[in-house]
Amino acid sequence: MNKFQYDKKGLLIVISGPSGAGKGTVCKALLKEVRNLNISVSMTTRKPRIGEIEGVNYYFVQENEFKKMIKEGELLEYAKVYDNYYGTPKNKVLEKLKHGEDVILEIDIQGALKVKSQFPEGVFIFIVPPSMEELKNRIKKRGTETEEEVTKRFQSSYKEINYISKYNYIVINDDIEKAVERIKSIIIAEKCRVDRLKHTVLKTIEGGI
Amino acid sequence: MNKFQYDKKGLLIVISGPSGAGKGTVCKALLKEVRNLNISVSMTTRKPRIGEIEGVNYYFVQENEFKKMIKEGELLEYAKVYDNYYGTPKNKVLEKLKHGEDVILEIDIQGALKVKSQFPEGVFIFIVPPSMEELKNRIKKRGTETEEEVTKRFQSSYKEINYISKYNYIVINDDIEKAVERIKSIIIAEKCRVDRLKHTVLKTIEGGI
Repeated sequence: MNKFQYDKKGLLIVISGPSGAGKGTVCKALLKEVRNLNISVSMTTRKPRIGEIEGVNYYFVQENEFKKMIKEGELLEYAKVYDNYYGTPKNKVLEKLKHGEDVILEIDIQGALKVKSQFPEGVFIFIVPPSMEELKNRIKKRGTETEEEVTKRFQSSYKEINYISKYNYIVINDDIEKAVERIKSIIIAEKCRVDRLKHTVLKTIEGGI
Repeated sequence: MNKFQYDKKGLLIVISGPSGAGKGTVCKALLKEVRNLNISVSMTTRKPRIGEIEGVNYYFVQENEFKKMIKEGELLEYAKVYDNYYGTPKNKVLEKLKHGEDVILEIDIQGALKVKSQFPEGVFIFIVPPSMEELKNRIKKRGTETEEEVTKRFQSSYKEINYISKYNYIVINDDIEKAVERIKSIIIAEKCRVDRLKHTVLKTIEGGI
């Protein structure tokens, strides 16, 4: 019997937003709640710190290897922070998707836009704080920055929010449980989207009964 | 404080699909489970049957009134079945949406396509049966039709499935609970879609802190 079926491939879910929006907290809570969900592990040229495990915290590589991967388009995105490179290895992500696992990528806005250019079929979720006032408070509370740095960081977040139209969804992080619930719903709904499913549905129909 | 907020307007959720897909059963189960969800009540020129209540089963009107509404574009869609008109009054739907209530419209494919042309911001969900074989069985089981009528109805369903690309979502009705769960997720996810939210988010940002 020719049954209708959902696509067996997993989804790449990109969780992004300005610093201070709480993407990290949201992702942690989401991973606790949802089975069959993986977080994408970054690749870096920085040396492992004590306790860091290869393939769990990062994939640790040499700079020449990293540069080779850039050259051969094997990274979904990358950035240089001070002297070290950080990036998302494409193959590791594609492998998991192929096996039907959904992959979460928690990343800043610049990184998310780069991923989108290479993988437009990803699901791009923008996390916003409850208010801009709250965002400023959160940046301040980190306490590691001077007043000037706080203002600079806030202004940068302020500008970055204008990129929301490049995303598919906005989730307001006013309540962590609600935010997680919404992202869970987005994942379920995306698997039902016509663009992802119509191909297999029409193929099933062509197969006759 | 300028808080980020979800849109206060409700969603029009159009649940459609070939006859035999089980849209009616899915809608009933959905209405039982979800608060703040209304089913759109049709307008008709047919006489009320015993027990039918105005505004619950149908809005009952005279033919000249119905024709006036057609002329003035006050119906989201309408059809003539034998001697009677049936249609969806636009104002009743818009009023509920304005008050933040989500409205479910259960309708055949032709009707859904008409609604889409007038209300493209609706959420269009196509219900498919578990398989085309199962669809044929379901049509047969109704037992009210001759073999010829069953074949005709099945062929019509077969053709209609080609309209899926006009919809936003496909929900496979292989399990009623799962189908309801998916539609619930679609409703939550749609409220987070950037197209619906970015306007209010950007306005909040413009408002400053």
